[in-house]
Amino acid sequence: MTGAGVRPSIGVGVVGYAFMGAAHAHAWRTAPRMFDLPLTPVMAALCGRDAAAVRAAAERQGWACAETDWRTLIARDDVQLVDVCTPGDLHAEIAIAALAAGKHVLCEKPLANTPAEAEAMTAAAQRAAANGIRSMVGFNYRRVPALAMARRLVADGRLGEIRHVRAAYLQDWLTDSAFPLTWRLRRDRAGSGALGDLGAHLVDLAQYLSGELITAVSGSTTTFVGQRPVTGRAAGEPETGPVTVDDAAVFTARLGAGRAVGSFEVTRFAAGRKNALRLEVNGSLGSIAFDLERLSELEFHDHSGDPLTAGFTRILVTEPGHPYLSGWWPPGHVLGWDVTFSHQAADLVIAIAAGADPLPSFADGLQVQRVLAAVQESAASGSSWITVPTAAN
Amino acid sequence: MTGAGVRPSIGVGVVGYAFMGAAHAHAWRTAPRMFDLPLTPVMAALCGRDAAAVRAAAERQGWACAETDWRTLIARDDVQLVDVCTPGDLHAEIAIAALAAGKHVLCEKPLANTPAEAEAMTAAAQRAAANGIRSMVGFNYRRVPALAMARRLVADGRLGEIRHVRAAYLQDWLTDSAFPLTWRLRRDRAGSGALGDLGAHLVDLAQYLSGELITAVSGSTTTFVGQRPVTGRAAGEPETGPVTVDDAAVFTARLGAGRAVGSFEVTRFAAGRKNALRLEVNGSLGSIAFDLERLSELEFHDHSGDPLTAGFTRILVTEPGHPYLSGWWPPGHVLGWDVTFSHQAADLVIAIAAGADPLPSFADGLQVQRVLAAVQESAASGSSWITVPTAAN
Amino acid sequence: MTGAGVRPSIGVGVVGYAFMGAAHAHAWRTAPRMFDLPLTPVMAALCGRDAAAVRAAAERQGWACAETDWRTLIARDDVQLVDVCTPGDLHAEIAIAALAAGKHVLCEKPLANTPAEAEAMTAAAQRAAANGIRSMVGFNYRRVPALAMARRLVADGRLGEIRHVRAAYLQDWLTDSAFPLTWRLRRDRAGSGALGDLGAHLVDLAQYLSGELITAVSGSTTTFVGQRPVTGRAAGEPETGPVTVDDAAVFTARLGAGRAVGSFEVTRFAAGRKNALRLEVNGSLGSIAFDLERLSELEFHDHSGDPLTAGFTRILVTEPGHPYLSGWWPPGHVLGWDVTFSHQAADLVIAIAAGADPLPSFADGLQVQRVLAAVQESAASGSSWITVPTAAN
Amino acid sequence: MTGAGVRPSIGVGVVGYAFMGAAHAHAWRTAPRMFDLPLTPVMAALCGRDAAAVRAAAERQGWACAETDWRTLIARDDVQLVDVCTPGDLHAEIAIAALAAGKHVLCEKPLANTPAEAEAMTAAAQRAAANGIRSMVGFNYRRVPALAMARRLVADGRLGEIRHVRAAYLQDWLTDSAFPLTWRLRRDRAGSGALGDLGAHLVDLAQYLSGELITAVSGSTTTFVGQRPVTGRAAGEPETGPVTVDDAAVFTARLGAGRAVGSFEVTRFAAGRKNALRLEVNGSLGSIAFDLERLSELEFHDHSGDPLTAGFTRILVTEPGHPYLSGWWPPGHVLGWDVTFSHQAADLVIAIAAGADPLPSFADGLQVQRVLAAVQESAASGSSWITVPTAAN
Repeated sequence: MTGAGVRPSIGVGVVGYAFMGAAHAHAWRTAPRMFDLPLTPVMAALCGRDAAAVRAAAERQGWACAETDWRTLIARDDVQLVDVCTPGDLHAEIAIAALAAGKHVLCEKPLANTPAEAEAMTAAAQRAAANGIRSMVGFNYRRVPALAMARRLVADGRLGEIRHVRAAYLQDWLTDSAFPLTWRLRRDRAGSGALGDLGAHLVDLAQYLSGELITAVSGSTTTFVGQRPVTGRAAGEPETGPVTVDDAAVFTARLGAGRAVGSFEVTRFAAGRKNALRLEVNGSLGSIAFDLERLSELEFHDHSGDPLTAGFTRILVTEPGHPYLSGWWPPGHVLGWDVTFSHQAADLVIAIAAGADPLPSFADGLQVQRVLAAVQESAASGSSWITVPTAAN
Repeated sequence: MTGAGVRPSIGVGVVGYAFMGAAHAHAWRTAPRMFDLPLTPVMAALCGRDAAAVRAAAERQGWACAETDWRTLIARDDVQLVDVCTPGDLHAEIAIAALAAGKHVLCEKPLANTPAEAEAMTAAAQRAAANGIRSMVGFNYRRVPALAMARRLVADGRLGEIRHVRAAYLQDWLTDSAFPLTWRLRRDRAGSGALGDLGAHLVDLAQYLSGELITAVSGSTTTFVGQRPVTGRAAGEPETGPVTVDDAAVFTARLGAGRAVGSFEVTRFAAGRKNALRLEVNGSLGSIAFDLERLSELEFHDHSGDPLTAGFTRILVTEPGHPYLSGWWPPGHVLGWDVTFSHQAADLVIAIAAGADPLPSFADGLQVQRVLAAVQESAASGSSWITVPTAAN
Repeated sequence: MTGAGVRPSIGVGVVGYAFMGAAHAHAWRTAPRMFDLPLTPVMAALCGRDAAAVRAAAERQGWACAETDWRTLIARDDVQLVDVCTPGDLHAEIAIAALAAGKHVLCEKPLANTPAEAEAMTAAAQRAAANGIRSMVGFNYRRVPALAMARRLVADGRLGEIRHVRAAYLQDWLTDSAFPLTWRLRRDRAGSGALGDLGAHLVDLAQYLSGELITAVSGSTTTFVGQRPVTGRAAGEPETGPVTVDDAAVFTARLGAGRAVGSFEVTRFAAGRKNALRLEVNGSLGSIAFDLERLSELEFHDHSGDPLTAGFTRILVTEPGHPYLSGWWPPGHVLGWDVTFSHQAADLVIAIAAGADPLPSFADGLQVQRVLAAVQESAASGSSWITVPTAAN
Repeated sequence: MTGAGVRPSIGVGVVGYAFMGAAHAHAWRTAPRMFDLPLTPVMAALCGRDAAAVRAAAERQGWACAETDWRTLIARDDVQLVDVCTPGDLHAEIAIAALAAGKHVLCEKPLANTPAEAEAMTAAAQRAAANGIRSMVGFNYRRVPALAMARRLVADGRLGEIRHVRAAYLQDWLTDSAFPLTWRLRRDRAGSGALGDLGAHLVDLAQYLSGELITAVSGSTTTFVGQRPVTGRAAGEPETGPVTVDDAAVFTARLGAGRAVGSFEVTRFAAGRKNALRLEVNGSLGSIAFDLERLSELEFHDHSGDPLTAGFTRILVTEPGHPYLSGWWPPGHVLGWDVTFSHQAADLVIAIAAGADPLPSFADGLQVQRVLAAVQESAASGSSWITVPTAAN
């Protein structure tokens, strides 16, 4: 009597079972129960390299079977949608192969470790789209209800002309110099450090919220702790290894055709800040402010009203009319970070069923990648301004 | 390859599929995926009176089958645990029957509409416990990680001798006098209004956090809007009907053997407050403060330190060592209101597997009921102090 | 070239030079410089019992001379306004004598230690008013700009029908049981403890903001620490003495003719709360919230607007059009606690010059006193409801 | 009986009577009453160009006399200290002349409109210091108690090695493009716009709090509204005039010898932000955060403690042991923005009496000026990094 028998289903296969994989599994399990979806996702298969570990994860997370080779996963008849949750160095290869095999693809952010990879992925996505195969990049924070509501306010003109986007993403897990050298601190695996991991979210959100592309950047990056302990090393290997990515990055951006100014900062060294993605947008008619550590809240200032009662209004984004809230609880019952993945899964399935291309597209992911690459180029050239190439140029 | 084949399972049947039923279903679906449980819950059956509606809900929520008679549900061989999510007037009958049938019972709060019902339920639970059958009342807010952490701080002596418990639960959904007369506003269904619905949580939390029972109360209740529109009425029936429960209640309590003072306020008329359960406990060595609208945060003041750096510390309760957090995401990734039900489900299953009586017990629920009844008695007698009977007296 | 030569002046004499005296001195010094007053206050004389101490205080605070007998102060020709900042047991005698001598009087709150004293003072004030002599009680928090703005919103109907007034005043300076026995802890000097000191403010503000009188109360009081060290004791005197006032009080009130509910709590044992006067008023159309520790901020919820952008707006009460702000700094430059006394001084002087009776009057102070006495009576009779006598009954 | 007769006095003359002049007057009036000063400031003379206006201001603010020529003010025998509150284009001329005349000087920030002027002023100050004449630049925010406390924590090593200084100063008074063209928007009077007015504070505070100098910067500036209405124009003059200063600036900085990163943003276009000077400093052992709109609060995170109770502690900086608090009210009674000027006046008088050079010195002001000039130079050269010259290079 499950939904699978009643309406058409879509088989999902995930590659990767760590933090992101677990979050996606929770979403595939939850989305069809909270939202009325036209296709019922079936949790077909989980893929990872370590056979015992992937088997245990599949059992824990509720997947029907486990695979150890992503090529096999892609080839399965019961998998119509491939969800890529690996480190960034594998995104391009897996996603392109899956699209070529006629499978829809959801790919975690950042889309790739280099613009070249992202360009190849985007080209593959565009070819696939011509055949009705859909692709999406996992900028899940667009689907925080408060941020979707913020976008609605901007789109409705409530902020007027945008003057400032101010964005910071502050974490502190590298503050201690004894923290070990993980894959996230190696350029060959992660592409970059805080810039790609955290900055990618900020760049996507800045463009999404403002409705404008970033056209040029000036920035710099820093690595505070250059060597970190290596864990699980073999006898004779050195005790520490070099950190080859940035610990922090600061950059300034121009948005769109006008004079809007973006300021961005990302770091893993802000002691006491755990997951502080903070956004503020100031326009000629109003402002919005947001903090991911309080993700059910949106602050909105309407600059057009009576100044004696004006100020930032703390909107608890839990009303039935707020984006995505129809699927959840009554007003005031706050949501957690994980709902962003359920919303993403739901929107993707709805787009697939409707034969529409979901957003953010691989092209959107590529554009973010180009901004990040421009920041790195600027950082390497004394913070000079770098124009971000766009599809048109 | 699901857990059901690997480790023992326990079949769950829920009675009720509205707001609370949906929250419980989400928990039964989620708990075994996020926590390592000794028994795997199987979502066996959902029960409701409207056949079409319960069938649709069962499909949506993921139940294996639907029932329309709770007696049938209880009798099913594949149901070992009955989860009661009905309005309060049915709690006693269903729970007692389920326990008599040898089924474990989870019963939503408040335990019953009257102390007499709660006493009968408690007696049934105690008889059942002798046979290894477990029961638990659903005061889910004990399992907000921040409140479980607060309890740990109190139990560790970090607050010293408790002087004040200050608790308010503010909602606003009745502010508009055109809001219709639902079952929650009828004494015959709901037992009481804000007092039972919201006050039950406060009383349980005050006793849980302080580790002390409420021994006496003085209080009053108010109904601001006496008549409300009746929806779905038959021809000839009046357009409005009487609200027979309280809209708001205020009461003062003595806790334990000492001089600790509790102050409590509940209302559904606090315009702008959606789900503002606010708690503060002040002791001789420190204080804690909490707001359910920011449920990942606990404020803790250590009064024993240097006054120049003292104050309320905003603890983001998302660290691996915080209660229940091992099952979730990395630091800073906040949780939603629904996790309380997953924690409740997990703890109940662990207790059943361990052959232990879970908390809060029906006896705890009865004690809350006695406090609420004492408040009503005080309200009916000019706010005079009423001693709360305990098991011992 | 000071203002004294240009426009008429009014000589001020203050009785008391401790905390309150210093705050009043600051106000008399500041008010004529920040506000355009019709009479220029001249700081004529300061009075205290300890000759050396009062002389030093007068020099420090900027008074032209020092007196040690309040009768002498009253008799001075250069004093037209007597400002009473003594402990409560002296209020009645000094204020009545000053009024009889034809001097305007500003008297600190609470107006007196007993309703009987307050009645005598009110009668004296009414007699004096017939001769153009003005009197005012120092409920300075009415003149916090944010609270004056809150009153304006209520008076303008922005909150609709008032349902709840929720007020707490939390301090922590008695948390440590080694804190000594000061005059504030002795009933013969202070009248009561937290109830009179802190509760008087709450009662006045509840009535001021709502525009309704408290008609009945039910309450209780507590003394957590019964004995405290005596300082400066003579040989042979005991080391500790009894605390004869309340440490904390909780009470519920009915306001006005309708069903509005007031809940009140005051304590000196809320570890970590230094001066947390918190107010919330909920009406049918909106709510306001305030915390004295953030006194430049008012939170206002408009319940009549679009629920998708509704919530509590943090108004920074520093705009030129906000109450009292014309005298101060540009927007965003926050004010301190002391401005309330400058506003009080300014309003009093303006009323005197205009031949008008200022508010809050001694009659207002008496009404607060009656409420506090009713709370004590209720506390002494098992929290039964006590009707508050009014001028009319 | 005023202090003037008892202890030595020091005559003060202020040049400028608008916003800053009024704030300084309040400080000169208040400081000797709240703090025990070795010299009693006497408010000797106020100077401004408009005779009637300066006379009215002097009367209102309490100055003994009014002057219309600053040269005359400097020459007065009863003026030993000249306090310069004019627009920036007059700072150098007045301050240098006053120092040459043997008068102590307090000069508002920014010290000058150009580094060249600031260098001349610094040289003059150093010559004067050799003769016991003191000078100070008015970076009053160093004397916000919360920021002085923050500095104490950094100096005590509580933050460890500094990694980040994050500073923004957000205002919104130019949001409306109809706001007129005032002197603050003209380069010839103000030197720069938000950069000098707001950025000067941030730069000084970043260096003060971290204890490190800014060694290099990369930045950019923006003018959103290029033409604004001219008020008080003669017949035939154009209705609008060009804004010749920046509306907003963003810059990145390196601090000290290490890798500490500073990020800075200033704007007058952040709708809804009135005076939001926000600072955060992250170190290896802890962090501090501050917002001028809540100036009595300091947030401090101790990263060295138990992570389960760690977080940002909201310190209410009103304890007797906090910087400057001995002069004010009991704990919890918050201070206003104006106290910074009283603290500045007190510290200056104490330094003069002690024969010590007060801080921040003109050399400190010059260093800030050099940073701001470097930002402008960077902005003019494509945001390339500009090394900030120091006294040593």
